[in-house]
Amino acid sequence: MRLFGGIESGGTKFVCTVGRDPNHIISDISFPTTNPEETIQKTIEFFTPYTKSNELTSVGIASFGPVDLNPDSKTYGFITTTPKVGWQQVDLYGAIQKALNVPIAFDTDVNAAAFGEKFWIPENQPLDPLIYITVGTGIGVGVIINGFPLHGLIHAEAGHIAIPHDWKADPFPGVCQFHGDCLEGLASGISMNKRWGQSPETLSDSHPAWDLEAKYIALALVNLIYAYSPKKIILGGGVSQHLGFHQSVRKNVIRINNGYVNSISLTEKIDDYISPPALGNRSGALGAIAMAKNLATKEE
Amino acid sequence: MRLFGGIESGGTKFVCTVGRDPNHIISDISFPTTNPEETIQKTIEFFTPYTKSNELTSVGIASFGPVDLNPDSKTYGFITTTPKVGWQQVDLYGAIQKALNVPIAFDTDVNAAAFGEKFWIPENQPLDPLIYITVGTGIGVGVIINGFPLHGLIHAEAGHIAIPHDWKADPFPGVCQFHGDCLEGLASGISMNKRWGQSPETLSDSHPAWDLEAKYIALALVNLIYAYSPKKIILGGGVSQHLGFHQSVRKNVIRINNGYVNSISLTEKIDDYISPPALGNRSGALGAIAMAKNLATKEE
Repeated sequence: MRLFGGIESGGTKFVCTVGRDPNHIISDISFPTTNPEETIQKTIEFFTPYTKSNELTSVGIASFGPVDLNPDSKTYGFITTTPKVGWQQVDLYGAIQKALNVPIAFDTDVNAAAFGEKFWIPENQPLDPLIYITVGTGIGVGVIINGFPLHGLIHAEAGHIAIPHDWKADPFPGVCQFHGDCLEGLASGISMNKRWGQSPETLSDSHPAWDLEAKYIALALVNLIYAYSPKKIILGGGVSQHLGFHQSVRKNVIRINNGYVNSISLTEKIDDYISPPALGNRSGALGAIAMAKNLATKEE
Repeated sequence: MRLFGGIESGGTKFVCTVGRDPNHIISDISFPTTNPEETIQKTIEFFTPYTKSNELTSVGIASFGPVDLNPDSKTYGFITTTPKVGWQQVDLYGAIQKALNVPIAFDTDVNAAAFGEKFWIPENQPLDPLIYITVGTGIGVGVIINGFPLHGLIHAEAGHIAIPHDWKADPFPGVCQFHGDCLEGLASGISMNKRWGQSPETLSDSHPAWDLEAKYIALALVNLIYAYSPKKIILGGGVSQHLGFHQSVRKNVIRINNGYVNSISLTEKIDDYISPPALGNRSGALGAIAMAKNLATKEE
């Protein structure tokens, strides 16, 4: 059987998947992200039976970043300036390609998730540009333009855009190592944890944290709407799953836009415009499978 | 002779051009933007001799916005929610197409300027994404991705992104009718004029206005770098022409990025990365000619 592999390499855990499409997953596994040697070794071991049986056609890697996506670069497929200890300048693509010896597609975890939502969900296919924003431990943005993930100097790093920070209302200085109070610094799960002294999951529904968080995410979304003019925004990640969060973000987006971009997507149709991932928390893994399948199709 | 027409329809003036390329301009004219009827009539009169002689192959319109770029829309080619009095919901494309009866390409002024810099300047051709930001009376951003201007729900409106506003250092509330202290609200020529009580051209080199302005524009550029991951940023417009302004913006971009996007474009090569338009203040008009020529090539 012709199979595709997906690797979602996250800062917390790796998810490895083998299958044909979202409805035909043969096997998957998840393990914590420890040091690169051990984690990559486990990944290779998971796929080895399928390379031995010659069923594994191609693999997609959906990696945390920043990563080098320039095919002409000596460090193509490397994780580069990540704050994650031990993972700077790690040749993730090379190590896996060498061991599995099949064609490998490589991209950021969020570009992969965006591509998965586009590739597997028919309703999303005409909605281009499409953006995927995850609000979890960190914040990341994946971007599909003209059918494929946006690459450039590197790739979108819009989790780190600057947004207005009202120091009087929120004196918390932010947690980003590079920028202090950028979007990720002010609104990631880690920042919520530090600001309120408890993890986001344990904050009650009436806690002021949620109102502040929705305002920050809405400020970011309006900036992304003004930048990409997307036809669809997928808002995922652990923090976004809090009850009523999407509703609250949408309300704030309408307030901040204030009628400037004049579209029903920003009024009566906003529930369709900003919505959770159709693939749930499988967007990344299934996006990696989509990348693998797309690569195999291109090479035929 | 085969000629192309360019219309740069700005909020202050219209520039109409006829020619083959930047080195073969046959004729051009510029007149103030008054009411739509009069202004469009003058535009049509300028081109009529070239339609009568059957030399005018196609025309590009580079318009102030927001505009409707959706070819399936009933209001395709309209100027939509502009604050400019009398110009809301004006069918600019339709009026000119009907009168001249040649194929017409239509886009925002800043998308056209970006396209012109890409189309006519060989060094820029491999630099994709390429963005063009103009800082003048207003602030606008044009975006080239995969060779062509970015369209989506509408088009980029990144002149209106939110940026951090330090109310203590700068108590000025901003001038944007829709957002107050968005980028255009805080850093457009109009905002400088209102904040300091004099027009930007009359502010001395040592005036604190320039330092503040460079910081705001740099904050915006870093946001745009994180959003689009551009390989080239063209910074134009009247305000940007102030002596030393590019240098000051570049220094602030390096400071704000703080090594996060790790590229020589953001260190030693920053003078190439962020630079003035190669076409000077003709980017818009020559961009419109480029759009016209591109359209004619496509239709052949």
